[in-house]
Amino acid sequence: MQLGMIGLGRMGANMVRRLLENGHQCVVYDRSSKAVEALVQEKAAGATSLADLVKKLSKPRAVWLMVPAAAVDKTIADLMPNLEPGDTLIDGGNSYYIDDIRRASELTVKRIDYVDVGTSGGIWGVERGYCMMIGGPKEPVQRLDPIFKALAPGTGQIDRTPGRDKLTGTAELGYLHCGASGAGHFVKMVHNGIEYGLMASYAEGLSILRAANVGAKQGDVDAETTPLRNPEHYQYDLNLTDIAELWRRGSVIASWLLDLTAAALVEDPALEKFAGRVSDSGEGRWTIKAAIDEAMPVPVLSTALYERFSSRGDAEFQNKVMSAMRYEFGGHLEKASGK
Amino acid sequence: MQLGMIGLGRMGANMVRRLLENGHQCVVYDRSSKAVEALVQEKAAGATSLADLVKKLSKPRAVWLMVPAAAVDKTIADLMPNLEPGDTLIDGGNSYYIDDIRRASELTVKRIDYVDVGTSGGIWGVERGYCMMIGGPKEPVQRLDPIFKALAPGTGQIDRTPGRDKLTGTAELGYLHCGASGAGHFVKMVHNGIEYGLMASYAEGLSILRAANVGAKQGDVDAETTPLRNPEHYQYDLNLTDIAELWRRGSVIASWLLDLTAAALVEDPALEKFAGRVSDSGEGRWTIKAAIDEAMPVPVLSTALYERFSSRGDAEFQNKVMSAMRYEFGGHLEKASGK
Amino acid sequence: MQLGMIGLGRMGANMVRRLLENGHQCVVYDRSSKAVEALVQEKAAGATSLADLVKKLSKPRAVWLMVPAAAVDKTIADLMPNLEPGDTLIDGGNSYYIDDIRRASELTVKRIDYVDVGTSGGIWGVERGYCMMIGGPKEPVQRLDPIFKALAPGTGQIDRTPGRDKLTGTAELGYLHCGASGAGHFVKMVHNGIEYGLMASYAEGLSILRAANVGAKQGDVDAETTPLRNPEHYQYDLNLTDIAELWRRGSVIASWLLDLTAAALVEDPALEKFAGRVSDSGEGRWTIKAAIDEAMPVPVLSTALYERFSSRGDAEFQNKVMSAMRYEFGGHLEKASGK
Amino acid sequence: MQLGMIGLGRMGANMVRRLLENGHQCVVYDRSSKAVEALVQEKAAGATSLADLVKKLSKPRAVWLMVPAAAVDKTIADLMPNLEPGDTLIDGGNSYYIDDIRRASELTVKRIDYVDVGTSGGIWGVERGYCMMIGGPKEPVQRLDPIFKALAPGTGQIDRTPGRDKLTGTAELGYLHCGASGAGHFVKMVHNGIEYGLMASYAEGLSILRAANVGAKQGDVDAETTPLRNPEHYQYDLNLTDIAELWRRGSVIASWLLDLTAAALVEDPALEKFAGRVSDSGEGRWTIKAAIDEAMPVPVLSTALYERFSSRGDAEFQNKVMSAMRYEFGGHLEKASGK
Repeated sequence: MQLGMIGLGRMGANMVRRLLENGHQCVVYDRSSKAVEALVQEKAAGATSLADLVKKLSKPRAVWLMVPAAAVDKTIADLMPNLEPGDTLIDGGNSYYIDDIRRASELTVKRIDYVDVGTSGGIWGVERGYCMMIGGPKEPVQRLDPIFKALAPGTGQIDRTPGRDKLTGTAELGYLHCGASGAGHFVKMVHNGIEYGLMASYAEGLSILRAANVGAKQGDVDAETTPLRNPEHYQYDLNLTDIAELWRRGSVIASWLLDLTAAALVEDPALEKFAGRVSDSGEGRWTIKAAIDEAMPVPVLSTALYERFSSRGDAEFQNKVMSAMRYEFGGHLEKASGK
Repeated sequence: MQLGMIGLGRMGANMVRRLLENGHQCVVYDRSSKAVEALVQEKAAGATSLADLVKKLSKPRAVWLMVPAAAVDKTIADLMPNLEPGDTLIDGGNSYYIDDIRRASELTVKRIDYVDVGTSGGIWGVERGYCMMIGGPKEPVQRLDPIFKALAPGTGQIDRTPGRDKLTGTAELGYLHCGASGAGHFVKMVHNGIEYGLMASYAEGLSILRAANVGAKQGDVDAETTPLRNPEHYQYDLNLTDIAELWRRGSVIASWLLDLTAAALVEDPALEKFAGRVSDSGEGRWTIKAAIDEAMPVPVLSTALYERFSSRGDAEFQNKVMSAMRYEFGGHLEKASGK
Repeated sequence: MQLGMIGLGRMGANMVRRLLENGHQCVVYDRSSKAVEALVQEKAAGATSLADLVKKLSKPRAVWLMVPAAAVDKTIADLMPNLEPGDTLIDGGNSYYIDDIRRASELTVKRIDYVDVGTSGGIWGVERGYCMMIGGPKEPVQRLDPIFKALAPGTGQIDRTPGRDKLTGTAELGYLHCGASGAGHFVKMVHNGIEYGLMASYAEGLSILRAANVGAKQGDVDAETTPLRNPEHYQYDLNLTDIAELWRRGSVIASWLLDLTAAALVEDPALEKFAGRVSDSGEGRWTIKAAIDEAMPVPVLSTALYERFSSRGDAEFQNKVMSAMRYEFGGHLEKASGK
Repeated sequence: MQLGMIGLGRMGANMVRRLLENGHQCVVYDRSSKAVEALVQEKAAGATSLADLVKKLSKPRAVWLMVPAAAVDKTIADLMPNLEPGDTLIDGGNSYYIDDIRRASELTVKRIDYVDVGTSGGIWGVERGYCMMIGGPKEPVQRLDPIFKALAPGTGQIDRTPGRDKLTGTAELGYLHCGASGAGHFVKMVHNGIEYGLMASYAEGLSILRAANVGAKQGDVDAETTPLRNPEHYQYDLNLTDIAELWRRGSVIASWLLDLTAAALVEDPALEKFAGRVSDSGEGRWTIKAAIDEAMPVPVLSTALYERFSSRGDAEFQNKVMSAMRYEFGGHLEKASGK
């Protein structure tokens, strides 16, 4: 099958590679002509503009956008003069599902199909395959099935879920038509919300292990500080690199994120190359907003998001407020060196 | 009535003053002879040692300890050779209630009464009176009633709680025999746990107000950052000093902590003199441990405690873990300047 | 001064009473003619329709809406044909500040001023006065100053904040022009967010006190349950009614919400007449959404909101998911009676 | 090698089976003679009492306890008269690491080695192998190496962590000597703390997906309830069974717990056989206590624990307190049917 790909960053370029390897044809475009050339070397057809890309596709066209969320609307607007009824636009980036609902509605008027695809897998997808969560009308999603099948991991070496043989569908192959427009990005959004919770759980746990020697450290005793009652209980110098590896092996908390953590710790046991300023993308935030609209209590996912905000210093003023109150009621001055 | 006071820091010295003003006699001791002399100027009787203090008290003696929690056991051990059956020891500091239970049991064998008193009011107590939460056997608590009455705020100008006229007891006067040994410090412990929650609530809320102009600030747009969808909704430059004052006046969230916050903001609207490293004393931690033993869900109080830990940089390693994972799965490098 | 009031529920009717007592004239309307008649008895001028209300006001008119947030847009639409350039509309209800921004912009075109007023004080406002947070253009806010002054508590018996005498403005009187359109409801929104945090802090703390006798209760010992290691530490039967009263008297956590809690506990010490299904209004939710837009970590306020969701059973499915996982990995069956 | 196993529940019996299959000899005892007989059928040597078990072991003996945490001290006391210097006791259950420290110290005096082993893997361990976290002195741990090797999963089909070939040790085999006495159960404790966080993350996320159709449901509009502003954004009927399966396939959040969740959803898509009363064992609680001692902020792990407490109704009183406050300040009556 033929696909146009716009946006040849890490994700877009690798998806093209995976498609080419599976025998599909790709017409590719990126603002950077270098990125286009690189893929032309690998047998993609290059385009010099959006118009050129559209022209090189046979009808009905299928154009996949793999651009930053903030650039999607602009790209669609630029494409529109060239597209025709019956064409399909796929947004495979990190759009807010609410934008999908709007875009689908706008494009329907012009009889262009819009399909939203939440994609997980990161830089590993080219090798493992991409897990795809798909939203939109039934027809274009079915039409694109060969593309999804090629990009997805397939069943691979992952054990079958017991009882799954009684069920049908593509979920086992690593892609799924989740529902109407926006459903793909909605499911991807929640996927990322969960991801934040999982990451924070490992991070908090490992930090408890790392501080298990706190009883061996000297501490001052004064009215502002609680001395450790039982320093003899905190005398362990634990090897986090080995423990992360250990947990990959038969424990209840084995996971792909743990695999990655184990790899990071092998390379840099104290994680010294990181400052600990954790970015967040929109999905984590939107997940919480959706939960609030649903009146669904999600304290774990929210707290995980807030840890990222705090990691970037955003709690500074509120901490000052607490220090100010302590000073006002108790005359407590801040301690120079914490704890 | 006569009372021996050991420990003439901010709290102990002011309590002596309040007792003297109310016509009680105080024999006072502190490791610092200066602190003793200062109160002798105000008509307290000074003691030069623990033994001297005990000698100057008439039997049955009442000795109030106002020393750091970590120094209580040592002080009691030093006092013991001088005390006699029938004497009463009062711990008015910030002891862990579990220590009270142990001490009361040890002292009972020697027929010395032990009374634990959790005291709230901070540096303002000398003026407002001290709110006292009392634990221990009935007899010594009743014997000390004149002391508690003098230290407590009394009914003052605070409105009577509707329906309270049908009830008896001392709660309206600002002191209460809460229960058996440890009950005083248990109630004080939870008081402080609540205090952390209240402080964090105001601090978080004020910080939302302070950032209400975030839409007026420039932000970069890239794949790692979520641009603000509606910057026009965040264009307010709010005056926190005025708002804190306003809320004192008829709002649902009026409180003494808000009074203090309003005062702090008048003096230093940006709270620039604080770095935001918030100390925590034992009570906040013990509150959470008690809740866990009781299987009582206390996410708000726990989170408030953790914000203090984080304010001192204790989350640094866990943030590095999250950055490391992001790097592993997505090739995401940390951003130099946050968000 | 003359004011039209639309919506004579608990809040609207009491505001009219307070205005009348302060010598202002009120023209009142409500869908319920009974509500109108009741205030006519108290010297308000009654109106039989929105048009009638507008007709009875002298120009430039000032019309205050005190209707449910969901009814504001409809009411404004119904009023519009009768209003004229120079008139002022005040929304004193619980609107989302984002709606204020939109409405102000729409009304500006018609040269009608729109003022948003967040009002705190609940059913107590008629007596204590209303704390008002005001947003909108300067001129109409100044024009309405006599109205705000009459509704607000004034300085009353509340102590002046130290250093406040150097500052000017109306905050001390209990009303404040916070900023441009929406600023009033923005500040009120955050006020309610804080309120949720404060309420949850007291609620969690009191529940720890209430369970302080958990060591006296019998528990089974099995592999699924952690027995209490030190039941002797949890043997207190604490009197919450007295403790809430006590804390009003000189403690750091004294507040108006605590006053109310003390009153509720006097009347019903076990709070048996409540089922514990806690409602939430929009402000708590919007506060969290604003914090997320600002990248401001607010785990305490969020968690307080989620406790309300959970109190209504909204966590049921997620709990089932956790039970299902436990069953899958450990063969753990749920226990019939908890813990 | 020869091992005595005491406690033939799900875990103990399966460990014996795995040892027998790997050519080790086991002498087994349980209070239930049936449990003993079952394993005798599978070539274990049965014992009729603790004394009998000890007698049947050759010196130096190795005795593994697989009994409930609350029964360990009693079992050790009962065993002691029969043991001799040079023997080794292994506690493979869910003991608190603080008990390990004490027991190791007590047994050292009698020259009996004590090894603590935290074991993960649940009912799946017999097939997958057990992940073991080991604490205690070096010599007995090394002596027991053949036992650990047989019980552990080995490298199996799990991919090697990149860079791991440069490192030595047993972590890759699924067992690890973590440190001195207590270290094994300390690491297992934190493992379970993390487990709670992971489980809660999936549970919260799936519940957001499940409620994605909330906009299609009718809701009343009144002053107590916030109507959904955009019901058109919540119209998805998502298939959780398929989505859980999908995420196993190439997504960032693939994990063993997700595998189990997918299996549970295949069998019972609405999880109707669960009531959602989630038990917790000691490790989750101890994890939080350790974090507090270390001043380590762990809001995600704590919140996950509290969700379990709440799932069992433990938040009921605090919810009543919040309802009581709302009634006091706003006259708000509880709503009969939530939200």
